[in-house]
Amino acid sequence: MQVKRTEQLFNSCSEEQLLKEIAPGKNRSIYIIGHMIAYHDAMNEILGTGKRSYSQLDAAFMHNPDRTGFDMPSVAELKQYWNDVHEQLSNAFEAMHQDDWFKRHNNMTDEDFAKEPARNKLSVLLNRTNHVAYHLGQLRLLK
Amino acid sequence: MQVKRTEQLFNSCSEEQLLKEIAPGKNRSIYIIGHMIAYHDAMNEILGTGKRSYSQLDAAFMHNPDRTGFDMPSVAELKQYWNDVHEQLSNAFEAMHQDDWFKRHNNMTDEDFAKEPARNKLSVLLNRTNHVAYHLGQLRLLK
Repeated sequence: MQVKRTEQLFNSCSEEQLLKEIAPGKNRSIYIIGHMIAYHDAMNEILGTGKRSYSQLDAAFMHNPDRTGFDMPSVAELKQYWNDVHEQLSNAFEAMHQDDWFKRHNNMTDEDFAKEPARNKLSVLLNRTNHVAYHLGQLRLLK
Repeated sequence: MQVKRTEQLFNSCSEEQLLKEIAPGKNRSIYIIGHMIAYHDAMNEILGTGKRSYSQLDAAFMHNPDRTGFDMPSVAELKQYWNDVHEQLSNAFEAMHQDDWFKRHNNMTDEDFAKEPARNKLSVLLNRTNHVAYHLGQLRLLK
């Protein structure tokens, strides 16, 4: 639901709007969109659902702030990556058994997971969903 | 986690910041905070955990946009309401049995719930948590 809402919002924006800051001196929408793609692509390795496809986005969208000079794909390319990443995750989630969500994710060691069993794959999904909502609230300011 | 993060953020802001718009022409922080209090207070009746305590906030924070002339409490009063509402909900959640989360909430009829059993009390909690994250993303622009 959060991903769909975000997609509807940015698809209703002009390219010019997506290249604008969401508020004076803050991130541009294109940065926020690329940031979510990079985060969601990285979920594959954390959840064990596959390899990453877009690690080339990390420099521009995850490890550095907006407007620090790193190469960014075009808005059209990012929209394609957005669709690919979410279609792939959606298929991977469909293929998971419900018990899998309560298992250890790959950023936790067995020892840490034994101490904190609530930090399972489902917690990754819930955190990432809140992360989408957080940035959707910011993107909404474009309208 | 989302409620705590929001609380830490607004407690680190001056009253002047909380009375400012989060971006030009957008809601003020005080409106967003009052809005979350009113929504969370209303969860009690939806989840069956008690009566509402702050329905007087609905006109200013839920049913009308910001700056439409409805009386608002002071920032100090809102912070007190925030603490009360979340302490009460937290106690109510502690007292719930885990199976209760999969039961019908009070905004669903038995007929609707039979058709859509995933729209249970847990879905209300998840939606409200995303709603906090959405507005937290906006409040973060104050910093």
